[in-house]
Amino acid sequence: MDSRRLESFSDGVFAVAITVLVFNLLTIGAKGPGLSFRLLLGDAWPQYFAYVVGFLSIGIMWLNHHTLVLHVAAVDRATLVLNIFLLMTVVAVPFPTALVAEHLRNSGAADAVVSYGVVMILLSISYASLWSYVLTHQKALAAAGSSGVRFIMVLRFSGGLFGYIAGTLIAAFWSPIAGLVIFGLLAVYYLFEHLPRPAGDSPDPDAGLDGAVTG
Amino acid sequence: MDSRRLESFSDGVFAVAITVLVFNLLTIGAKGPGLSFRLLLGDAWPQYFAYVVGFLSIGIMWLNHHTLVLHVAAVDRATLVLNIFLLMTVVAVPFPTALVAEHLRNSGAADAVVSYGVVMILLSISYASLWSYVLTHQKALAAAGSSGVRFIMVLRFSGGLFGYIAGTLIAAFWSPIAGLVIFGLLAVYYLFEHLPRPAGDSPDPDAGLDGAVTG
Amino acid sequence: MDSRRLESFSDGVFAVAITVLVFNLLTIGAKGPGLSFRLLLGDAWPQYFAYVVGFLSIGIMWLNHHTLVLHVAAVDRATLVLNIFLLMTVVAVPFPTALVAEHLRNSGAADAVVSYGVVMILLSISYASLWSYVLTHQKALAAAGSSGVRFIMVLRFSGGLFGYIAGTLIAAFWSPIAGLVIFGLLAVYYLFEHLPRPAGDSPDPDAGLDGAVTG
Amino acid sequence: MDSRRLESFSDGVFAVAITVLVFNLLTIGAKGPGLSFRLLLGDAWPQYFAYVVGFLSIGIMWLNHHTLVLHVAAVDRATLVLNIFLLMTVVAVPFPTALVAEHLRNSGAADAVVSYGVVMILLSISYASLWSYVLTHQKALAAAGSSGVRFIMVLRFSGGLFGYIAGTLIAAFWSPIAGLVIFGLLAVYYLFEHLPRPAGDSPDPDAGLDGAVTG
Repeated sequence: MDSRRLESFSDGVFAVAITVLVFNLLTIGAKGPGLSFRLLLGDAWPQYFAYVVGFLSIGIMWLNHHTLVLHVAAVDRATLVLNIFLLMTVVAVPFPTALVAEHLRNSGAADAVVSYGVVMILLSISYASLWSYVLTHQKALAAAGSSGVRFIMVLRFSGGLFGYIAGTLIAAFWSPIAGLVIFGLLAVYYLFEHLPRPAGDSPDPDAGLDGAVTG
Repeated sequence: MDSRRLESFSDGVFAVAITVLVFNLLTIGAKGPGLSFRLLLGDAWPQYFAYVVGFLSIGIMWLNHHTLVLHVAAVDRATLVLNIFLLMTVVAVPFPTALVAEHLRNSGAADAVVSYGVVMILLSISYASLWSYVLTHQKALAAAGSSGVRFIMVLRFSGGLFGYIAGTLIAAFWSPIAGLVIFGLLAVYYLFEHLPRPAGDSPDPDAGLDGAVTG
Repeated sequence: MDSRRLESFSDGVFAVAITVLVFNLLTIGAKGPGLSFRLLLGDAWPQYFAYVVGFLSIGIMWLNHHTLVLHVAAVDRATLVLNIFLLMTVVAVPFPTALVAEHLRNSGAADAVVSYGVVMILLSISYASLWSYVLTHQKALAAAGSSGVRFIMVLRFSGGLFGYIAGTLIAAFWSPIAGLVIFGLLAVYYLFEHLPRPAGDSPDPDAGLDGAVTG
Repeated sequence: MDSRRLESFSDGVFAVAITVLVFNLLTIGAKGPGLSFRLLLGDAWPQYFAYVVGFLSIGIMWLNHHTLVLHVAAVDRATLVLNIFLLMTVVAVPFPTALVAEHLRNSGAADAVVSYGVVMILLSISYASLWSYVLTHQKALAAAGSSGVRFIMVLRFSGGLFGYIAGTLIAAFWSPIAGLVIFGLLAVYYLFEHLPRPAGDSPDPDAGLDGAVTG
């Protein structure tokens, strides 16, 4: 219950940010006098693609935020402020998503994909900051966490960060599409990634996040 | 309490998605120097019609999501991921709703109604996936559910799915208006449809969903 | 706890609908190359006025919804469905509010104010429907409510409904501004109106809604 | 639990208002056929700057609202009404934020920054009103609060108010940029400011808000 209102506000922000993505779709077919399958399927596919990638990215961020808050027994000012910085990058995601949808097939493709990468890099940094703070300031975690667990977690986050940096550089200097593919693979990786469970949970190694969520 | 944050985030997404429908109305009378009853009532009725159908469709989905989560005692990663896919289709509903409102009286009517049908088909599939997973992975349900109950539930969902497929085909090859009428009838059907109550509830057959919600 | 998710979803919808009102303000000064006090204060005042009236109207509706749900011990399907119809009219409020802001000083003023009145009439009807249902179907209320209390409540709601009808007719046939003033007075009336407290509450007659909310 | 729904609605409004800020960013690169680093970084920086300042301002307001509600044991009608007035000014923040982003580099800069200052002044007044009411009407606070604590709180709020007034006057008559810098410093000041903890909390002076939130 300590972290109830942190969750409530964060859930609201995640929910609105993820729904803002539909405003991209609302521009399809809004102008012309008629529609055609060519317009709806042929021309608009980058919009659909960006919608799915953006939705999964914010959805995964919510999933991981969900897990992270399970570790927060006591909410202090610093946690709240770091959470605001994290939300600031989450809410920004629809902006580069719209750029990618709009410019993937014209000369602005590289700039659009680089913008997406930069926002994801900022998001990774702010998420890692919040997680590092929680890891070191929550007594249960600080007491129970072995250095091995921490090393794995740092490795996972660093991996994501380096992946986004690599994708951004590849989009900037080689191929925007290749950069996008890397971002898509990162989203799938995080979709199946499990953060460690809170200490005291069922030791069943197969339970994974189940234990964390229901424990 | 295990499913509290799943509910909180889902409720937020449903709430924002249902409210996005008003942006369609905000375009009415936004441009011209004056208004007229002819504009507000005569020309804008497809906007109002689409608003009501879209609102009821998302509202019903929320009702059924509400019932479904009552069956979820323990939230695992797969439930959360399937829920994100369901929300992805819910959030998309305002897009074909806007297409129907905009194009119902021009040559794009068939394409608009087909778009609506396709999104509702995707929504039905993602909802059935979440429900199937919950039905087979929640111990209380798996233990208590007779095969008869499951058969009825599969039948109901399949019925909805086939209804949306039929309406989509009818809109594509015969009449967009006839397709829309089928979608409207499906919304009314689901408005009064009851999912089974959680096991252990009052056996009063008249209690219907009351028992499920308050048990 | 029975009505928790009904509240959660409703609060979300109220919160989004009330925030949509700011999109009216976002059009001020969005186009021209510069700003001026004349533009910000002289030309835009109908926007500010509509924002305040719309915000108070939705805020009051939320307050009263808050009180109403206190009387709901058990949530059944009919309550949920009637609540969706109520929310459908709440979410529509930003539409006539935008019409009033846009057309108050041109020939469409009467049509805009009439639109506002019609939405408020529909809102009153759907709110009265939900309240009537709760009043007759919640056992505690049905048992404890004296016919005198019910008469007062019916009178209050009818009063609001007749006020909105009168304001709409006056705006249509006589003066849009006079109609708006009546709507403003109704908002102030409801701001200070107290619904009856749940049975069993402190009998302190001065406690007013305090008792209902904290009992 | 008494203030649960007040929090739920307020969190929703804060969450939507803070997310509305991204609509400013969505206009960047929405029109032209291509993008360029010069457009994304050189021309759009006021948009990013306004996004960060607006996000932090609303985020801080949420933090302080969070703390304030901890002091509210019993929610009465006046608290709810004062809270609606506070939310009305919070939701308005994206409007002057958009004006600053749009007009910071043209002749409307002073008017835009003054608009921002006026909204922040109204926000400070409505926040101080709510806080004053809570301070005098919540029994625990009224009993425990020494006059010294109250003096400090009044001083802090007055300080913020005078800061916003000074920044507004400076923007109006001297330099819009100087006014903005003052608003930025005020945001940083409030980011680290702690409201007093509820009476009965741990007397540990280092606990700061931790105690208030987790006590």
